[in-house]
Amino acid sequence: MTDHPLVIFTPSGKRGRFPVGTPVLTAARQLGVDLDSVCGGRGICSKCQITPGYGEFSKHGVTVASDALSGWNSVEERYKSKRGLIDGRRLGCQAQVMGDVVIDVPPESQVHKQVIRKSATERHIEMDPATRLYFVSVAEPDMHEPTGDFERLALALRDQWQIEDIEADLAIMRRLQPALRKGAWSVTVALHKGNHDMRHRVLDIWPGFHDAPIHGLAIDLGSTTIAAHLCDLGDGRVLASSGLMNPQIRFGEDLMSRVSYAMMNPGGDVEMTRAVREAINALAVSIAAEGGVEAASVYEVVIVCNPVMHHLLLGIDPVELGQAPFALATSGSLSLDARDLDFAALNRAARVYLLPCIAGHVGADAAAVALSEQPDQSDDMVLIVDVGTNAEILLGNKHRVLACSSPTGPAFEGAQISSGQRAAPGAIERVQIDPLTKEPRFKVIGSDLWSTDAGFAEATATTGISGICGSGIIEAVAEMRMAGLVDQGGLIGSPEQTGTWRTTPEGRTHSYVLHDGTAEGGPKIMVTQGDIRAIQLAKSALYAGARLLMDEMGIDKVDRVTLAGAFGAHISPKHAMVLGMIPDAPLDHVTSAGNAAGTGARIALCNVAARSQIEATVHQIHKVETAIEPRFQEHFVNASAIPHAVDPFPELSAIVTLPNVSFNTSGGGADGRRRRRG
Amino acid sequence: MTDHPLVIFTPSGKRGRFPVGTPVLTAARQLGVDLDSVCGGRGICSKCQITPGYGEFSKHGVTVASDALSGWNSVEERYKSKRGLIDGRRLGCQAQVMGDVVIDVPPESQVHKQVIRKSATERHIEMDPATRLYFVSVAEPDMHEPTGDFERLALALRDQWQIEDIEADLAIMRRLQPALRKGAWSVTVALHKGNHDMRHRVLDIWPGFHDAPIHGLAIDLGSTTIAAHLCDLGDGRVLASSGLMNPQIRFGEDLMSRVSYAMMNPGGDVEMTRAVREAINALAVSIAAEGGVEAASVYEVVIVCNPVMHHLLLGIDPVELGQAPFALATSGSLSLDARDLDFAALNRAARVYLLPCIAGHVGADAAAVALSEQPDQSDDMVLIVDVGTNAEILLGNKHRVLACSSPTGPAFEGAQISSGQRAAPGAIERVQIDPLTKEPRFKVIGSDLWSTDAGFAEATATTGISGICGSGIIEAVAEMRMAGLVDQGGLIGSPEQTGTWRTTPEGRTHSYVLHDGTAEGGPKIMVTQGDIRAIQLAKSALYAGARLLMDEMGIDKVDRVTLAGAFGAHISPKHAMVLGMIPDAPLDHVTSAGNAAGTGARIALCNVAARSQIEATVHQIHKVETAIEPRFQEHFVNASAIPHAVDPFPELSAIVTLPNVSFNTSGGGADGRRRRRG
Repeated sequence: MTDHPLVIFTPSGKRGRFPVGTPVLTAARQLGVDLDSVCGGRGICSKCQITPGYGEFSKHGVTVASDALSGWNSVEERYKSKRGLIDGRRLGCQAQVMGDVVIDVPPESQVHKQVIRKSATERHIEMDPATRLYFVSVAEPDMHEPTGDFERLALALRDQWQIEDIEADLAIMRRLQPALRKGAWSVTVALHKGNHDMRHRVLDIWPGFHDAPIHGLAIDLGSTTIAAHLCDLGDGRVLASSGLMNPQIRFGEDLMSRVSYAMMNPGGDVEMTRAVREAINALAVSIAAEGGVEAASVYEVVIVCNPVMHHLLLGIDPVELGQAPFALATSGSLSLDARDLDFAALNRAARVYLLPCIAGHVGADAAAVALSEQPDQSDDMVLIVDVGTNAEILLGNKHRVLACSSPTGPAFEGAQISSGQRAAPGAIERVQIDPLTKEPRFKVIGSDLWSTDAGFAEATATTGISGICGSGIIEAVAEMRMAGLVDQGGLIGSPEQTGTWRTTPEGRTHSYVLHDGTAEGGPKIMVTQGDIRAIQLAKSALYAGARLLMDEMGIDKVDRVTLAGAFGAHISPKHAMVLGMIPDAPLDHVTSAGNAAGTGARIALCNVAARSQIEATVHQIHKVETAIEPRFQEHFVNASAIPHAVDPFPELSAIVTLPNVSFNTSGGGADGRRRRRG
Repeated sequence: MTDHPLVIFTPSGKRGRFPVGTPVLTAARQLGVDLDSVCGGRGICSKCQITPGYGEFSKHGVTVASDALSGWNSVEERYKSKRGLIDGRRLGCQAQVMGDVVIDVPPESQVHKQVIRKSATERHIEMDPATRLYFVSVAEPDMHEPTGDFERLALALRDQWQIEDIEADLAIMRRLQPALRKGAWSVTVALHKGNHDMRHRVLDIWPGFHDAPIHGLAIDLGSTTIAAHLCDLGDGRVLASSGLMNPQIRFGEDLMSRVSYAMMNPGGDVEMTRAVREAINALAVSIAAEGGVEAASVYEVVIVCNPVMHHLLLGIDPVELGQAPFALATSGSLSLDARDLDFAALNRAARVYLLPCIAGHVGADAAAVALSEQPDQSDDMVLIVDVGTNAEILLGNKHRVLACSSPTGPAFEGAQISSGQRAAPGAIERVQIDPLTKEPRFKVIGSDLWSTDAGFAEATATTGISGICGSGIIEAVAEMRMAGLVDQGGLIGSPEQTGTWRTTPEGRTHSYVLHDGTAEGGPKIMVTQGDIRAIQLAKSALYAGARLLMDEMGIDKVDRVTLAGAFGAHISPKHAMVLGMIPDAPLDHVTSAGNAAGTGARIALCNVAARSQIEATVHQIHKVETAIEPRFQEHFVNASAIPHAVDPFPELSAIVTLPNVSFNTSGGGADGRRRRRG
């Protein structure tokens, strides 16, 4: 044994020598080892659990004796008996270094623990949320060295947590003195770190040690739907995901009609602001209930949205966004008090962070997609398409990233579709149509069974089969095309032409009967000619935006395509390709990323450094304006066919056969002359 | 003529060489010459007026030719014809340097112009308010370089005014776009500079050039009275000074009874908070009306007050201040939104600054006195006494400063005095009593005439003679003592003993009739035995506090005494000495500083650097706690006599003769045993 034994931490490999008797937590801090502690080493929080290794560690060149750490003590015994401790584990604040030792820090004891994202790409989020809890012991007041209780709290945070620049509002000042006295001069504070000014604001205070979890909301505020994730700010777990329709739909289905509403109706913007704030408040209440927590335990909200929603949420008249040069009132990120946005359901001190906008038509949602998918870190040329009422499109690699938005309309979200609905239990999300029999089968959200599987009726008894969501309608139209029920121009054939009763006359056109639940009192779910036209318009706009970026980049092909859906549903790459939503790419290089904007919001929620990162990144993204670009119109007009005439799909032909049918001689041409709405 | 003529500015003496054609304003900026400009050199604001000198300047070694500046131009002509320009003046932004030149910057063109304080000490306040107006031209939006309007405003402020770190709340964001467009991409903003974080917050915005003055309030919030100065934040002028009684008096006359009220009545602190906030709001409305401005033009408030008022204003329960160790919830300075204090009458974006407290019994008012009187800069040992319901006492020099507070009660403010009132028109503020005839004469606030002068009745016809203010009661009691109407123990003699009908029986004691206005329907103004007792208690507390500090400093004598009154009235040094309010000092070294706390508030209002200065200074002030110091009681008991028995007044005997009368054998002793209330 030496006076200064060697301490080696795994998995970091950090090592150093410390005096005999040094607590393991102290050694970890001095070496910069990522070992958590909320109570600051007082044996209360148990966050600093470690696993000492004994015996020979040839890799590290040390042999660890059985008395390398101080003996099991009463604090650990009490903790174990009351709250449990895995065998072999010690509390890092209690165990002292007595000899050379190898110490493993298990993942759950790491502050910056990594959370696996539940999505196709399986990327990790390093936990470093803006708001965290700190337990602190405050010096008692001394008449002869008079300073305020708050000043002594700030001093304690500096000494015990190395945190400077503490501030608090009057509501906290009011509660400070009773809390300190009730907690016998120890308190737990929820501290919020500003990513701009690095000041720390006290959001909440409790007497003594308090470790009830605190929560955050990541909100993707779309034109049609509002989606939210409720996260535990301690470990990043998603406790609930939920959403609702944006109530602003009653003022206009797409963004430009809402801007028009604001222009035509004095106070119209105020009405829309109130509507969306109330909806978010209501969503916060319902998602908290779903996650089994109090809405008042939500201290952080991150919101991503397009510029019009951004301005309407903030209470800024969006009129300038309706006309060139599409000037934003503010493009930078914003840190606000939740009560400034009337989010009364949340904790009264809750903070809201809005990601920066890229441009007047390319919003914080696009920034969130960039944060999630990181095209600026990519070696190969990647096209990222975030499908919503307004599609956000990013194209680039580590050298250059371009962005635009494209007004696809709400069809991809199941709106403006005859049987459309948002992605919720009971919605059809997957569709297959047999090319021979023209008979469909489908899956609904909430069940893994196909509708033709045994037990499907029972599995869907509670949800019913209520409509088609965005991914469902994309698959339905693509499958109809592949089954020869729809021609290249998008026309649905008559029963005589298709050979199935399911393409049934509806007025002067035909509709495909996907499911007839009327016998059981359910809806008749059809894909109408109007639905096909809506999808054609949407996909043409999407395709045209992507092509425009490719023109700007000077390329004809991309290496990879990432499909993201605004509302969590995964879009099938094959069906997206059949529809011609996206330009050519090897099909196995097309992936579906789920709700990338929502993921970006969640990253910014869980990691404060990511906020600074995306704020820097958006300045590097070059934005292309679709609204004034004649080539956009040109691409749009040419993109109407399924598949369109301009770009054949050499990659796709290996997988699917698109029948060469035409139900109407004027089909493709007539569609080609249709003008985009708005 | 050279390519780079020499430019010399007076009075600063700064000089430098500049290319021919350089505007004088540009040269001034590059040399750091203090030359004002609100419009940033656009010939709009005329703040940059300068006076060129021509001919031989032997002192500077230059001869200035008549064409040393460019010719009088159309901008100057238009300005002169529309708004007037003194002959010989030029606009610094228009006149260009053509040859060697000497340029005088008149005082009104200096940003940091000095304003003469209306007080005995005639000290200067350098103008550098936290909130100032800036005119700025903002780049128009560009679709191809998309940034928000706010971000371009921030950029313009950086480029045109070298101001970084701009922030704005949602209300400003809402008004930004219309203002920019209405002002054709020029706006004037009111910017508030935080003295802690050096961030600038946009408080208001106007289209184009706007130079309506903006205002600030300096408030001395006392236990008994609330006094305010309304200042022009451009030039520091005091537009109105006004005050009202603190409505919290109904909850308790002194601080400890208010703390008791809060302890005994649940919600009592909330009641008191509401009362004082409403009073300040009402005062803001009335003082704005008096100054002829809108209350909404007030963007800044500085408040100084004792710790109990401080906590009650902030909505913090003052219970901890009622018991040792007298812990403040917060001792540091505070920067708040006026709306957090419910000051709804002010501009909605107005900011409030509270000076730091020194200790649990020594508040922001003492800090304000220190800022105004600067004992820490003094070569000689100065005693500063700020007389209020709670007296703030400072003792020290540049080596060491001590502070304490002493609970004098409200007598010195005219409260608890039978005919007492606050200092307002109609109040008796000066008193003389003829030692032979025992007849009084007096002056009232609002007239310079003595009551015995011809025309006094006419001069006071509108105000009447309503009562006695703080300085009046001090003079009255001292004059009664000097005229032999009151003995050393404080007892008023009977008519037989004094030889005048004016010491008239009132119950078991006597009162002195100062003025009988009953014939004209006015009040009968008397000094009662109770008034004398109240003044004796107050002065004993004051004296004891001062002595305690002298003990702590280890001195028996001070070099200077500064008397400050909380409500603007000037206390007569001679009468204060006769009363024994203050320890010995050469009478010509005793000065009256008016409302030093209010002046300190006004300094912090007009000069943002003074805020940082006093924040640093308070840490250097050593605080002495009177409440637990046995010697305070001892000094207090010994200080009751007029003059008291312990310290004779050798200095004073040269000026006044104190008659050796005694109306009651037990007088001095009986008073000496009286206990302090509270």
